[in-house]
Order: sequence, then structure tokens, then C-alpha cells
Amino acid sequence: MIDIERIRADTPAASRLAYLHNAGAALMPTAVVTAMKQHIDLESEIGGYAAADRESERLDAVYGSVARLLNASPEEIAFMENATVAWQMAFYALPFRAGDRILTAEAEYAANYVAFLQVAKRTGAVIDVVPSDATGELDIEALERMIDDRVKLIAITWVPTNGGLVNPAAAIGRIARARGIPYLLDACQAVGQMQVDVEAIGCDMLSATGRKFLRGPRGTGFLYVRKPVLQQLEPPMIDHFAAPWVSREHYQLRDDARRFETWENNYTARLGLGAAVDYALAIGLGPIEQRCRLLAGRLRNGLGAISGITVRDLGDAPGAIVSFTMEGHEADAIVRSAAAAGITIGASHPSSTRIDAEVRALPVVVRASPHYYNTEAEIDRLIAHLAGLAPR
Amino acid sequence: MIDIERIRADTPAASRLAYLHNAGAALMPTAVVTAMKQHIDLESEIGGYAAADRESERLDAVYGSVARLLNASPEEIAFMENATVAWQMAFYALPFRAGDRILTAEAEYAANYVAFLQVAKRTGAVIDVVPSDATGELDIEALERMIDDRVKLIAITWVPTNGGLVNPAAAIGRIARARGIPYLLDACQAVGQMQVDVEAIGCDMLSATGRKFLRGPRGTGFLYVRKPVLQQLEPPMIDHFAAPWVSREHYQLRDDARRFETWENNYTARLGLGAAVDYALAIGLGPIEQRCRLLAGRLRNGLGAISGITVRDLGDAPGAIVSFTMEGHEADAIVRSAAAAGITIGASHPSSTRIDAEVRALPVVVRASPHYYNTEAEIDRLIAHLAGLAPR
Repeated sequence: MIDIERIRADTPAASRLAYLHNAGAALMPTAVVTAMKQHIDLESEIGGYAAADRESERLDAVYGSVARLLNASPEEIAFMENATVAWQMAFYALPFRAGDRILTAEAEYAANYVAFLQVAKRTGAVIDVVPSDATGELDIEALERMIDDRVKLIAITWVPTNGGLVNPAAAIGRIARARGIPYLLDACQAVGQMQVDVEAIGCDMLSATGRKFLRGPRGTGFLYVRKPVLQQLEPPMIDHFAAPWVSREHYQLRDDARRFETWENNYTARLGLGAAVDYALAIGLGPIEQRCRLLAGRLRNGLGAISGITVRDLGDAPGAIVSFTMEGHEADAIVRSAAAAGITIGASHPSSTRIDAEVRALPVVVRASPHYYNTEAEIDRLIAHLAGLAPR
Repeated sequence: MIDIERIRADTPAASRLAYLHNAGAALMPTAVVTAMKQHIDLESEIGGYAAADRESERLDAVYGSVARLLNASPEEIAFMENATVAWQMAFYALPFRAGDRILTAEAEYAANYVAFLQVAKRTGAVIDVVPSDATGELDIEALERMIDDRVKLIAITWVPTNGGLVNPAAAIGRIARARGIPYLLDACQAVGQMQVDVEAIGCDMLSATGRKFLRGPRGTGFLYVRKPVLQQLEPPMIDHFAAPWVSREHYQLRDDARRFETWENNYTARLGLGAAVDYALAIGLGPIEQRCRLLAGRLRNGLGAISGITVRDLGDAPGAIVSFTMEGHEADAIVRSAAAAGITIGASHPSSTRIDAEVRALPVVVRASPHYYNTEAEIDRLIAHLAGLAPR
């Protein structure tokens, strides 16, 4: 059981705001804020290098925390400025030739898709979008049929940015593993919201961010690369941390996933990320997932009863991102009116998930994303606010 | 004139430590610490997205501040996680073919050199090291003689990490511009220590960090790219911020230098960087440079009089990094003994500047790097401490 009283006490802003924008950037618990401020103070007291030295054990422990979160080992984890850089370092490390195929899903995130387009232009590789099934999830049977020897990557966004869809990551993993195809999973919206087990999923590479459901700082992200795959991947760009300069004509890539990192880091943000992961682990990702689904389900039920609102979420068992549109109301106007009423929600633009948005002819959608620290009463406040916008 | 009293009041740790490690990470002024903590507080009060929105003007102004610092325009500036990523985004954007030549200097930084080696391996490009002149600076006449049509890049570290050398950046720029060769300048140790004018230098691309002589936060860096060059450079990796996804099969690169950025950022660190740049600009880079040279000169003079110490700095007019070795004392032991006496200095390993270190048969060298906020008394404390280690 989640001790909601204690958790809300750790999140002071929760008493003032109905904060339902966790798919954007969640509210950080006090432990994260404190970890960051303390490190800034230490840096200003003894200097940035001495501060990192003094905190080296805690900094090293962040690899262990993220590894526990994912059921990975610390050597398989690398830290980056954000989830996009994490994803890029894996994706751009893969060699593609003309005619190679990249398989992805309809709701793939814009950041990833433009990278596919760049590599396609550069190498002659081809992007093939796996269709969705009747529920809106990636169609596993279609994926199976599309696979041939030219498929060199399956790259999927697990939980898209624009709604409740949860793609069947583990079913995709079984196919990828059986066919020996590298599998890159964008888990940006999944990590912190639900249980993530890279062994159960069977992905080779996974990228994620700190600021969303993990409740960590902005400007943090990480990459998981499975050990056997790691040794085959030369990072697209290196420095002397990733690859020490061992003799005049030679560098030697690190053995661990830190070959994808650079030497200099924002240790303040990294300690904040570590505090966020430890906070989530202490509560338990199982209970977190359960409560997220409960609150999102309550919200969908309430929205379904409001005249003029269409819930836009896809999938058989949608997650904590609730997307909807409302007749006669632009998404941005709804977000503003909610903000004026002390309710923080967001919007998702079609250009973030262009293929899915085109297939479904989506306009800008409103995006409300509760988290375990929210209350039923906050969900009901949003429902009541939206009901108040509807025609009587 | 620098108001040293006021500046030291803005740097509380200066009253407790003789901090002479500004080539590693300088002490941040209070304004930087405050800017960061305030933004963390704002994020925890209203969420990370709303906080960035509310501070959008100040965040945007950071481009202007860095542009003023470099005599560039804000559209020519991009922010990254660190100087290495900034340098990489420029370097890896350049197209190389087999036989193309990259010209660099003997004291080139390891991070850059391993990237040269990777690209050489990948493309068949060749790395040619321009020899140094009698003073130890890059030999301008040798550079001129080495240029032919196969030279596709001149990439130089302006102020190397391992000593006082200041390479003739502007003289190199005149040659690069006259011959139409792209010129990438690593200004990591120069920015914040001395006046930097990209127009006077004539570089096409320049990378730098926040944490060193600029006195900004760790985990900050920036890239300058000259406008006409910008349009010719496709970043090695892109996301939907660098290149919006404008139609299913197309992305469109931004016109400005932010095509080298990604969407998500650490705005706390960026505001800290902005505060650091504004602080330096308010003092003036002219007076800062003058005082840095004065204090470094005083230190070199003092060291020269101590038996067993060899000052290792190269160049005609060395800057604020003072490197030396001491007979019978390992560099790391000297750093530790100084730390015990409340004096913060550092060391530089041969693997950071392998070619220069091999040419000069350098062991690990001690690195003491004063800044304008240091006092003559602090310099003299270090000199006295080292004299105390010397045989009587």
C-alpha cells in the first residue's frame, strides 16, 4: 500500500496544485530537490572536482539504482543529458546499408522518426511502419510477417507521448530475440510509471528520461545496453572517457555502457536522478503502476460521461496518459482554463506523433497524466472543471 | 579596476580556501548558485515545464550573454551538456573522405584526438600534427607550408589543459580564412580567462565549457558556429527540436545554431551558466585577463626560485595555467599536501595531451590555475608551501 499522506508531504506543491502533467515533467519529491541543492552547496564550498570526489560513492550508486529499476546490471547503464541523446547514442551506433529495413510503430515519437529519416537519407536504409491492430497496439502478427533478412532494427516507443497506449514491448522482444534483430525500446514515458524488466522485455537497448514519471530533474536521461550487444557497438562519437587514448594512434573503448558517455557531467542532476530512482524503488513500481492505472481509469470514466469529450487513448490496457478532445474547445484553451483553476495538464501536438495523428486525423489533444501521488479528489476536480466547460 | 573585496564577498569559499584550480572547475560566484537554486525551487513549486515557460525570457537571454562574450550573434550559439559534446557536434558534422587531412597541434586535447582517430578509421582521413616553434606555440610558418587542397579541417586547442601555452588562434584563423579551410577552435580553457572575439580570431566553430574560467556550473557547454558555415553543416544526430518533422518523409533543419541542440535541457544549469557569463561580462574580460596573467606571472616567478622545481609552461606569453614538476615529489603527492594546507590545485596526466607529453617526455605535472578572484597572498601561500617541500 502506498502511504499517500506521507508522499504528499514529500511533495509540497501537491497541496496547492492538482498536478496532472507527469508525462511532461512530474513534481520532484523533496529528496530530489535536497540532493541537488546540497551538491550545489558542496561545489560552491570546495569546488566542482572535489565535490564529485567526495560524493563518488553516492554518484557510483546511481548506476546501481537505475540497474535495479530496470533489472539490469550497473555495467549496462550509461547517463546522458536526456533520453533523446541516450536513444541517439544507441541508434546512430548501428550500421545501416542501402536496403536495410528499420521497423517501427505508428505512434513513434518525432525525435526518433527524424533520426530514422536522417539515417535513411544518409545510408539508403528504409523505414517500415508496422500497422496497429484493432485495439491500436502495434500488431504483433503484422510485425512477424514483415520480418525478413533485411530488417536490421526494431525501434519502438513503448508508451507514446500522445496518449494511453502501451505497446506490447515484451511480445516484440520475443520476436526480435528469436530472429536475432537488434531491438531499441524508447521507454521515456514508461519508466517510473510501470514495472520495467529488460530481461522480461528482451530489448537490447532502452532509453529513458528522469523528468517524467520518475520524478527526477530535467536534463537527465539514461541508456541501457545489454552486455553482449555492448561489445558490438562503437559509439557514433567518442571522447577520452568513452575511449581512453592509450597510445598515439590508438584509443580503447571502455568495456561497459559508459563508452556512450562523455567525461564531463552535471553531477548535481545525476544525484537528483539517483534520489528520484531510490524514492520510486522504496515505494515499489508494482504499487505505483497499480495506482497510476487506477487514477487514469477513474479519469477516463469521468471524461466518458461528459458531453462533447472524446477520449483518444488506444490499446487494450491503457496507462497513465489520458488524452482527449472536446468539441468546441481548442486543447490549448482547455489547458489554460485548467491552469487558471489550479489544475496542471498539457497538450500533445500532432507533429510529435505524426503518423498516428495522420492515421487518426487527430488535432492537438489534451493530455492529463496522473501519478501515484495524485488523489481521487484531484481527478474529480479535473472532471468537474471539464464538465463545467461542456454545454448544459 | 577589479573590486577584489566585493568579488571575494561573492565567493564565500575564497575566505577559507586558496582555490587555484580554475582550469579544473572554478568556484562559482553566489549569483550562479542562487540562480540555480531558485530555478530548482520554482520547478518544485509549479513543475519543470511551467518553470521553463515562466523563465523563458531569462533563458533566452543566455544566448545573448554568450554571444556578447564571444562577439557573435545569438543565432550562432547552441548549448550542450558540456564542451566535449559541443565540439563533437561540430566535428562529426564535417564530411571527410579517404585522404582528407585534419591539421592539429601538438598539445591537442585527448577528447578531440580520439575523435580524430575514430573518424580517420571510419573514413580514411589523415591526422597531421603541426609542429611547434621554438617557444612551444603552434608554428605558423609550418602550418602555412603544410596546407594543400586535401586539408579539410584545422582543429586546434587554443589553451591546452596541461599548461600555460596560448596557441596563436588568430594567426591560424587568418590562414584558414585565406585558404577557405574550416577552422574549429577548442576554447575550453580560454573562455572566461581572456578576451575572446570570434571575428578577430576568424574561427568557424568554437566550443567551450561553463565550469572552468567562466565560473559556471558543471555539465554546461556551448558551441559557436559562424552563420555562413551553419547552413552547410548537417548535425551528426538530430531530434525534432533540431529538425522539426514537417511531413511524413521530411524534416527541416533549424536555420540557427540550435540545430545542434536537443529538445530537452537542464534549465537550472543553463540559468547558472547565464549568471556566470553575466558576472564575467560585468567585471570585463579585459581586466580579468590582465589580473589572471599578473597572478600567474607572480606564481611562475616564485616557483622559478625554488630548488628542484621546473616550470613546464610553453609559449611566448603564457596564460593562467601554471604547470610544473618538482624533483623527488610526485605531482599527486604535491596536490595532496597542498590540499592539506588549504590550497586547492590539480594535476595533468600525460594521457590528456599525449603528443606534447611524449615530445617533451613529461610526467604527470602539477597544475595551479589562479583566477581574478585570487589574491597575491594566496599565490604566495602556495609558493611558500612548495618551498617548504624543497630540500634546504
